[in-house]
Amino acid sequence: MRWSKYYLPTYKETPRDAEIPSHQLMLRAGLIKGLTAGVYTFLPLGLRVLRRVAGIVRDEMDRAGAQEVQMPVLHPGELYEETGRLANFGELLFKLRDRRDRFFALGPTHEEVVTDIARDGLKSYRQLPQNIYQIQTKFRDEFRPRFGVMRAREFMMKDAYSFHATPESLQDTYETMARAYTNIIERCGLHGVRVEAESGAIGGDINHEFIVLADAGESLLFRCPHCGYAANDERAESNGPRAIAREPAGKKEVATPGKHTVEEVSTFLNVSPGHLVKTLLYRSGDRVIAALIPGDRDLNEIRFAKVIGTTEFRPLDEAEILEATGGPVGFSGPVGLPAHVEIIADVLLEAYEGMIVGSNAKDMHTRGVRMGVDFTPGRVAPLSTAKAGDVCRVCGQGELEPQRGVEIGHIFKLDTKYSSAMKATFLDAEGREHPFVMGCYGFGVSRAVAATIEQHHDEKGIRWPKSLTPFHAIVLPVNISDETTARAADHLYDQLTRMGLEILVDDRDLRAGAKFKDAELVGVPLRVTLGERNLKDGNAELYYRLEDRNEIVPLDHVAGIVRDYYSDVR
Amino acid sequence: MRWSKYYLPTYKETPRDAEIPSHQLMLRAGLIKGLTAGVYTFLPLGLRVLRRVAGIVRDEMDRAGAQEVQMPVLHPGELYEETGRLANFGELLFKLRDRRDRFFALGPTHEEVVTDIARDGLKSYRQLPQNIYQIQTKFRDEFRPRFGVMRAREFMMKDAYSFHATPESLQDTYETMARAYTNIIERCGLHGVRVEAESGAIGGDINHEFIVLADAGESLLFRCPHCGYAANDERAESNGPRAIAREPAGKKEVATPGKHTVEEVSTFLNVSPGHLVKTLLYRSGDRVIAALIPGDRDLNEIRFAKVIGTTEFRPLDEAEILEATGGPVGFSGPVGLPAHVEIIADVLLEAYEGMIVGSNAKDMHTRGVRMGVDFTPGRVAPLSTAKAGDVCRVCGQGELEPQRGVEIGHIFKLDTKYSSAMKATFLDAEGREHPFVMGCYGFGVSRAVAATIEQHHDEKGIRWPKSLTPFHAIVLPVNISDETTARAADHLYDQLTRMGLEILVDDRDLRAGAKFKDAELVGVPLRVTLGERNLKDGNAELYYRLEDRNEIVPLDHVAGIVRDYYSDVR
Repeated sequence: MRWSKYYLPTYKETPRDAEIPSHQLMLRAGLIKGLTAGVYTFLPLGLRVLRRVAGIVRDEMDRAGAQEVQMPVLHPGELYEETGRLANFGELLFKLRDRRDRFFALGPTHEEVVTDIARDGLKSYRQLPQNIYQIQTKFRDEFRPRFGVMRAREFMMKDAYSFHATPESLQDTYETMARAYTNIIERCGLHGVRVEAESGAIGGDINHEFIVLADAGESLLFRCPHCGYAANDERAESNGPRAIAREPAGKKEVATPGKHTVEEVSTFLNVSPGHLVKTLLYRSGDRVIAALIPGDRDLNEIRFAKVIGTTEFRPLDEAEILEATGGPVGFSGPVGLPAHVEIIADVLLEAYEGMIVGSNAKDMHTRGVRMGVDFTPGRVAPLSTAKAGDVCRVCGQGELEPQRGVEIGHIFKLDTKYSSAMKATFLDAEGREHPFVMGCYGFGVSRAVAATIEQHHDEKGIRWPKSLTPFHAIVLPVNISDETTARAADHLYDQLTRMGLEILVDDRDLRAGAKFKDAELVGVPLRVTLGERNLKDGNAELYYRLEDRNEIVPLDHVAGIVRDYYSDVR
Repeated sequence: MRWSKYYLPTYKETPRDAEIPSHQLMLRAGLIKGLTAGVYTFLPLGLRVLRRVAGIVRDEMDRAGAQEVQMPVLHPGELYEETGRLANFGELLFKLRDRRDRFFALGPTHEEVVTDIARDGLKSYRQLPQNIYQIQTKFRDEFRPRFGVMRAREFMMKDAYSFHATPESLQDTYETMARAYTNIIERCGLHGVRVEAESGAIGGDINHEFIVLADAGESLLFRCPHCGYAANDERAESNGPRAIAREPAGKKEVATPGKHTVEEVSTFLNVSPGHLVKTLLYRSGDRVIAALIPGDRDLNEIRFAKVIGTTEFRPLDEAEILEATGGPVGFSGPVGLPAHVEIIADVLLEAYEGMIVGSNAKDMHTRGVRMGVDFTPGRVAPLSTAKAGDVCRVCGQGELEPQRGVEIGHIFKLDTKYSSAMKATFLDAEGREHPFVMGCYGFGVSRAVAATIEQHHDEKGIRWPKSLTPFHAIVLPVNISDETTARAADHLYDQLTRMGLEILVDDRDLRAGAKFKDAELVGVPLRVTLGERNLKDGNAELYYRLEDRNEIVPLDHVAGIVRDYYSDVR
């Protein structure tokens, strides 16, 4: 490609509204152009990278035995009625009506469509397992689209769905797919982690996220350096802090005039916030639930929903708290609650000797309260979020380390959630009917491009990993008006292109400084600079962007060097 | 691929509602599965063919110097306000509102989006010409979706848009793209014709369709066997029939009691319908227009709209006809019309000596009327549709032959229609601002799959051209329970796959007849049958689907034969 006739606009200024490096650089380096909030065109340079990612994904899916299809964007509403997911997605779903007033959603994911395919074409256990995937545009009407293609409303995703006769067969494919994801991430030149996760709207129980580590990422995860346990913040469990001063047992009331919050009470009593236990009151249908968690932690609402068995819950209001506990907001506690209030205690509270809780009376707290003695919870379960430094619950040794990152993959065991709802069944060897056991496997193809830039950039621009670079090299003739230089650039371009390499020649009539800056911004790993002085000696200058290294080499060695540089890319 | 674990359902029965061979065969051979009217999944086998077409299209676009991008599906409504195309598309457009009640259309084509890209990144004549394309899913809410992927509501299209400083530059690219289309069609193994066409909602004046000939096609075209002129039915012009008896000149009134239609009057007067001239009366705003066309032809409404300069027109109702002509419906004629009625005569009427027309009075016609004497038209222009056997207007020699086909490509010179409306301009060498001169180039990728089947099938199934076949060969072990056969099939599969060939092994435990039938239905050009008897002699049976020919060959020659068979595919 010749830059002068290539649609590759670059910008010096950091664009307004672009908060994170990948969004800024994708706009500045001409990879994407925004059309409206969360909706982007992949320009020629950006599409080259997107297709490299898609190529790696496709290759690994094929190796994992998955079969590619292309499912529709337009999903008829009736399909969602079968599974009841309309409500589940809510406003996240783009909805429309056709000219005959029939209701459609734009596909946010394809569980229903693929299950409909399976119930049509898979009849016998002998056809199983099968794994079907697509690389396709998805639509989600995000409440707050942002970070460019990272959280877009229209984005490219690989989604795979597997069908099995048994949970053991699902387990096999699940691990095969997890390995494929690890391969994809590695082949893209990314540093990623597989973590345990919660499942959200997709359903199923066992599921894992693949997170590319990056400071600007929206995901928080915890890792144990001792045993390797890793989970996202919604899922991570811990044994709590290794050793802290605890409230001794021995119940006594103390006045805490006007002190409502954990911070106010702990400062007033001169103890750490962890001495206190928060009593959070919720209503769910007819139930009133008191959730007890350490004063220095937050309630994990996803975990809480699982424990109480529904996502339908809300905090009590002031009047309801007074009615349920007899005391005002800010002074609730588990002691002496009426029997209809269900008490669920966070598992970390088992390690407490005593605890400080509200007394269900204005301006009063109770110290030294013992669980199981002064009050008895209906259940003990993991309810609170993990914190950095917590002791790992798996090995009991390491201390959890927090890291931020970008979720680019999410795999789920769906079991029979969709197949049962949609009556998608097969016959076993004895002719008995069973719903398919299913798995599903998502990978954010366009998001991976942004995640790559988050991991691979510097103050000058992008630093593409070899496997994803849009071009193998930029040939940069310093002075395009010099005939010898222009001829050398043409010759080198032809030579490299004939070798099957993809080359961008910066033949624009600009000053050298601007061209160097643009080359660094665009971030191709190799730059071949053709200057008059070097050319006189039969030489060119090679710049290695990833290694930040220059080298003068004979002009006729350049093609071989470029080819060899990429010989380790698969 | 092993068929036993491949999602490839086949059906013996012709599916209800599938009217044409390609739709029937795509469903029966497991290429597609319908989700709802005009919305299809491409199953693994179908996607393989779709991607082969896309690969050829991409290759030819790249050779033609076009740059690939990926534009969004979601188009904000404001964009269409700039060009006023909302009304133009009307109900064909899928429309929706997001969670903030902002209006969107699902992209039916991308003129607005790409022009917005050009005005952003192309500033100088030095950057021109540029040609930008995508292979992307498009959406049109067809009034009557039918024929499977042929006229679908969600379909895959290649659309390219070129930007130029001058009409000459556009002409260059237009011809380059036309050649690329001819190459694509040829490489897909298709027999196609380039025809002149009308432009519809896209706009511009000069445009051509590429039509794949097929009896079941929706397009009608006329070709001159003498000079090669070809045009679709909306565009085709002719000199009319070579020689017919004409009405002699000499005006005289005749009573035609109760005879309203051309057929009734010509039968009654014992003349051919071509002796008559129809007077069709329309209102367009304040204008009343009488269109005169030969009695044996229809008005070409698209042509008529061009002649009168607007698509806003409607036939007069009975009362209006009486008011405008003084006579009732069925007896209108051009003689003695009031001056405010504009008369436009079809160009074919220039060859008429006399003509039979209505007398603008009940039950009366006038014979022998002469144009230019008894009445004078305001304009003479081509208004009527061509007919088989008409003399070619270009060479004046050949007689037009009608053919049916499938439109798979349409290219347009848009000139400055979109760039002027959207203020998309560049600066010339003197620093003056001009709107881009534009072209656009559509190709129906999913439709091409159906068109291929229309041209290449027989009563047994599909006959894929070599370049589009989903697999290079089917290996068919007659009896999979026989260990020697199964081992031979495995060995051959491995051998062929290692050579980079794509192979389907029919390892299903079915009777041989069913497997042969399925192989013919699916239509892969080569079938390698492994039977016990032939294997004993170290042989296999090769069946050439396109040539309908069998051959017994040594088993160890098979791989080489398969490879060589495809050596001419590019």
